[in-house]
Amino acid sequence: MIVNLTSTTRTVATPVVPSRGALRPLGLDDVRITGGVWARRQAINGRATLAHIEYWMEHESWLGNFDAAAAGTVAEHRAGREFSDSEVYKLLEAMAWEVGRSDDAEVDARLTTLVARIAAAQEPDGYLNTQFGRPGQRARYSDLEWGHELYCFGHLFQAAVARLRTRPDATDGLVQIARLAADHVCAAFGSGGLQRVGGHPEIEPALAELGRATGEARYVEQAALFVARRGTGTLADIELGRSYYQDDMPVRDATVLRGHAVRANYLAAGAVDVAIETDDSELLAALTTQWENTIAHRTYITGGQGAHHSGESFGDDWELPPDRAYSETCASVGSIMFSWRLLLAQGLPRYADLIERTLYNVVATSPSHEGTAFFYTNTLHQRQPGTTPATDVSVPRATSSLRAPWFAVSCCPPNVARTFASLAAYVATVDDTGLQIHQYVPSQIRTHLPDGRALELDVETDYPADGRIRVIVRTSHAEPWTLSLRVPAWATGATLTPPGDLPTPAAPGTVRVTSAFTAGDVVELWVPVGPRVVAADPRIDAVRGCVAVERGPEVMCLESIDLAGAGAGRDADVGHVHLASRDSVREVDGQVVARFEVDAPPADDWPYGASGAVPDVDRPTTTVVEAPLIAYHDWANRGPSTMRVWLPST
Amino acid sequence: MIVNLTSTTRTVATPVVPSRGALRPLGLDDVRITGGVWARRQAINGRATLAHIEYWMEHESWLGNFDAAAAGTVAEHRAGREFSDSEVYKLLEAMAWEVGRSDDAEVDARLTTLVARIAAAQEPDGYLNTQFGRPGQRARYSDLEWGHELYCFGHLFQAAVARLRTRPDATDGLVQIARLAADHVCAAFGSGGLQRVGGHPEIEPALAELGRATGEARYVEQAALFVARRGTGTLADIELGRSYYQDDMPVRDATVLRGHAVRANYLAAGAVDVAIETDDSELLAALTTQWENTIAHRTYITGGQGAHHSGESFGDDWELPPDRAYSETCASVGSIMFSWRLLLAQGLPRYADLIERTLYNVVATSPSHEGTAFFYTNTLHQRQPGTTPATDVSVPRATSSLRAPWFAVSCCPPNVARTFASLAAYVATVDDTGLQIHQYVPSQIRTHLPDGRALELDVETDYPADGRIRVIVRTSHAEPWTLSLRVPAWATGATLTPPGDLPTPAAPGTVRVTSAFTAGDVVELWVPVGPRVVAADPRIDAVRGCVAVERGPEVMCLESIDLAGAGAGRDADVGHVHLASRDSVREVDGQVVARFEVDAPPADDWPYGASGAVPDVDRPTTTVVEAPLIAYHDWANRGPSTMRVWLPST
Repeated sequence: MIVNLTSTTRTVATPVVPSRGALRPLGLDDVRITGGVWARRQAINGRATLAHIEYWMEHESWLGNFDAAAAGTVAEHRAGREFSDSEVYKLLEAMAWEVGRSDDAEVDARLTTLVARIAAAQEPDGYLNTQFGRPGQRARYSDLEWGHELYCFGHLFQAAVARLRTRPDATDGLVQIARLAADHVCAAFGSGGLQRVGGHPEIEPALAELGRATGEARYVEQAALFVARRGTGTLADIELGRSYYQDDMPVRDATVLRGHAVRANYLAAGAVDVAIETDDSELLAALTTQWENTIAHRTYITGGQGAHHSGESFGDDWELPPDRAYSETCASVGSIMFSWRLLLAQGLPRYADLIERTLYNVVATSPSHEGTAFFYTNTLHQRQPGTTPATDVSVPRATSSLRAPWFAVSCCPPNVARTFASLAAYVATVDDTGLQIHQYVPSQIRTHLPDGRALELDVETDYPADGRIRVIVRTSHAEPWTLSLRVPAWATGATLTPPGDLPTPAAPGTVRVTSAFTAGDVVELWVPVGPRVVAADPRIDAVRGCVAVERGPEVMCLESIDLAGAGAGRDADVGHVHLASRDSVREVDGQVVARFEVDAPPADDWPYGASGAVPDVDRPTTTVVEAPLIAYHDWANRGPSTMRVWLPST
Repeated sequence: MIVNLTSTTRTVATPVVPSRGALRPLGLDDVRITGGVWARRQAINGRATLAHIEYWMEHESWLGNFDAAAAGTVAEHRAGREFSDSEVYKLLEAMAWEVGRSDDAEVDARLTTLVARIAAAQEPDGYLNTQFGRPGQRARYSDLEWGHELYCFGHLFQAAVARLRTRPDATDGLVQIARLAADHVCAAFGSGGLQRVGGHPEIEPALAELGRATGEARYVEQAALFVARRGTGTLADIELGRSYYQDDMPVRDATVLRGHAVRANYLAAGAVDVAIETDDSELLAALTTQWENTIAHRTYITGGQGAHHSGESFGDDWELPPDRAYSETCASVGSIMFSWRLLLAQGLPRYADLIERTLYNVVATSPSHEGTAFFYTNTLHQRQPGTTPATDVSVPRATSSLRAPWFAVSCCPPNVARTFASLAAYVATVDDTGLQIHQYVPSQIRTHLPDGRALELDVETDYPADGRIRVIVRTSHAEPWTLSLRVPAWATGATLTPPGDLPTPAAPGTVRVTSAFTAGDVVELWVPVGPRVVAADPRIDAVRGCVAVERGPEVMCLESIDLAGAGAGRDADVGHVHLASRDSVREVDGQVVARFEVDAPPADDWPYGASGAVPDVDRPTTTVVEAPLIAYHDWANRGPSTMRVWLPST
């Protein structure tokens, strides 16, 4: 195994900094999001969500666990699930990115205070976990299947990476805690230690990145050991099967993601890191195949992944029920981690397409507009309106009704928070030819090309409301360079207008303008964001006879409150209407609308009858209404409602 | 609460003997199944399945647990899950019915031997459970949510009822064990005891029946207490919610079955018993509503119940995914228990319709043709061929591929065995007007009307292969009596031919012939059993655009091995074909066939596209094949295969 970390890339303020690859990431100081929907999300995240999360972690004593550990009383009083330490670390990571993004001194101070409480609980040899190892607790590493010790370390390391890359001079000690813990892990699980892995992957990408951020090749090598051991049966064969934690076959032998969807994506992300740093092209090819097959056969139209509530796992190919979509928020955070690493490695726009889809339709769906309630799962079809959860009660994780303030298993809120705080990292990259823009958001880009030339660009757009994206060059160079822009796969009919030129067709993929740009030059991309009626491959049985509507990168949905507003009457349930015609989907004054026919009431006895005698075939229509469709990420913000993304069309 | 047990009904050799109701059950000595598919199932059950189950219970040490309990060593060595005792009791019950049915001396001897091992483990105060209460074990009733102690008692009582009603003079002591245990339960959970219920209902119908069989009103009153307490929040609020164990609302307030499907049906069955014995018409009405809504909105075409793998539970109304159908075998056994009690109470043919559907399409599906491997879940769509399970390994419960010899949770095999052994109980009933035949199977009925008149009938039929059912009267009486026959709800066009008369139309429901029959009289019912193409209410979203094929009471399916035989090529996967036309479904030489078009291969990238550009709309067809459809209960008997009940038709 050869690990050669390139120290020159280490200081970029971004989650992933590979030492080689097609594209180089830019940091939060290179790209500033200046407006639009993402800026609003970031502001709410920094203002409301971080404090909300910290409140609940204090309320649930997940922070207090560290104090109790330091005081020697945690064995009797530990609160929360076995992985609650990791949620605290994800909050630290989110805070660290937020400080890097907004320079918020108050957040910085809160972070510092939290780190001190954690530091007090670390043991002299670097071990740190409030659940294991003390008198009265189970022994360290005695339950690698479910204990989550290595998983917790992983989130600790990612927090430290965020801190190191945004505030390298911080004196809070978070980086030192992480290094001490990582040294312990390398000793305990290195080639002379336990030849095992943890039940929940996460330490793999985290160790790789801590190695990149600190220059410690040992950490990357330990990540590589964990990746190589996965799939060799070192974990118990549980009722869900070893595939649940990807221990059913070696990573390089797999052809598709399977098992627990968060675990699968975190592992894949870490395996890409290992493949890059060890120059393992066979492993990278296997992961690329896994990504392709997962996208082609096991991903929801929202980008969501994980079809099964049971095991929170992927289903078989084509098994994508909208009403039982688990589509865990965290699985989509993991999917973005996986896709982003492949994008940096290979530069292909398909990865940025999926990231965009996933950000708009899963990650943005999880939090409420106020940023203080969340979806853990993200169903594509809500059959029951449900009730409004109390704002002061933690709820079970997968009650797919309205967003809840907190969960007994609350992995998703801090995962969303760290993603929003670091969103600018996913906007653009550079390579030797120039700069690539992957996501369209009002922004200022102030960076340098690898050859040292300064680049200053502004992006002006109302995307996705409007399809016009203007890139304004603020610097001049004698030598030409290339601006690359992603044309989303769905954007048939897009046009590109180079500076001073006429629009030309821009096919989906990547379009490039190479020029010795001068200050004031404008490159304009126009993509058609109007509503599109979309059907699924017929093998996705659960949505046969249905269509979905997309607008730009956003998946639309029908919510019952809008049916009621349109006069549908009789419960105004999305389960009682079908699309009148595909042609009825249109945009009026910026709002997508469609015509629906209200179905006859169901028979109240046996629901299976002679074909021809059931409403499916001979459907008497009572009412036709035109109702608005809203962006899926906006649903369930107006009280209890039923909702569906896939609209019956036959 | 008034419980007046009518002692005259106590000795009928059948599982359920209410003291009042519309119909009176007949015993295994009144009805003998003499041939046909049910007789074959019973023979295999008695010959192969009972021994198979006993072998595995010995092999897994579930029987040894009782020996260890008697020896005082079970705390260190207990094997199996917390409910394994109950499986042993279900085996005892199956053996008891089998002895009653076939008079098999060897089974009788094995039963007696097993009872002796169990007797040795009972504690002096009647308590009996190998998992709780001894030094080194958890305290009795310290985990009512998951401990299954009351559930185990329930199955013990049902076994004792079977023994008492088929061999009242047996000296094995099973009935005494049960009475001692029931006395203990009444003391521990009576009005002066713990005011709680068990996490898994079952003791409710069991106590009611033990009360009926022994004449002890106290047992029925204890059952009534348990039913009344259910839904008052005496169990913990678990992550699955209190609805999981029906503790979310009182039984009489519920309008539909919900939560764990086995728990829900067992509880409903016991609540009917309580409603009958306490003359509680309000409770009976609530249960009738629950049955109606469950059948109308939450039941698979097979009669199977339970749409969720997670929690093995009912889903919301209309949520019936074929590929993720849990449809646990035991839930269908419970559904038959519930329906049978309502049939006895009310006499309506709809209950017998559902029993027939469930017997043919779930209970008969679970065991292999050899009776030594089982489905725990009964999916309606198998996407992966899977692999053949080893014959010597116990497997996790819900691997929906091929039948497995045994499961870590093996509730289903003995549940099927006790149902098959007692099948004759569900064939016919009597009331003051005469005799009712509910299920059509070659049989001899030798019984008496309530007024004492002897009745002798023979039923001759090849049903369901053929639709002709001949009821031959072997006795003569001066006074007329009424023979009632069920015409299945699907049997449009049936005819009835009274003795010496011409055929007349027989509408679905109940048809009656009242006559002073003389020996040799023949009543002939003819029902059209040819293939029917059936569609679902469009609210069952998961099967939109599909049809199913039924033949008589049997649901048909397409298995990939038959597609391959028909020359479908390219993997011959049921996921790659659609029905060419509904008219192509026909019967040829007793075999149902249909024409299928083979779909184009799927695209290998993003599977959601502009409507019109995906195969759903513009599907190039390469091959048309005519393939046989087989009875669903026969599938997966020819090696690994894919299968679907619902056939895409658009």
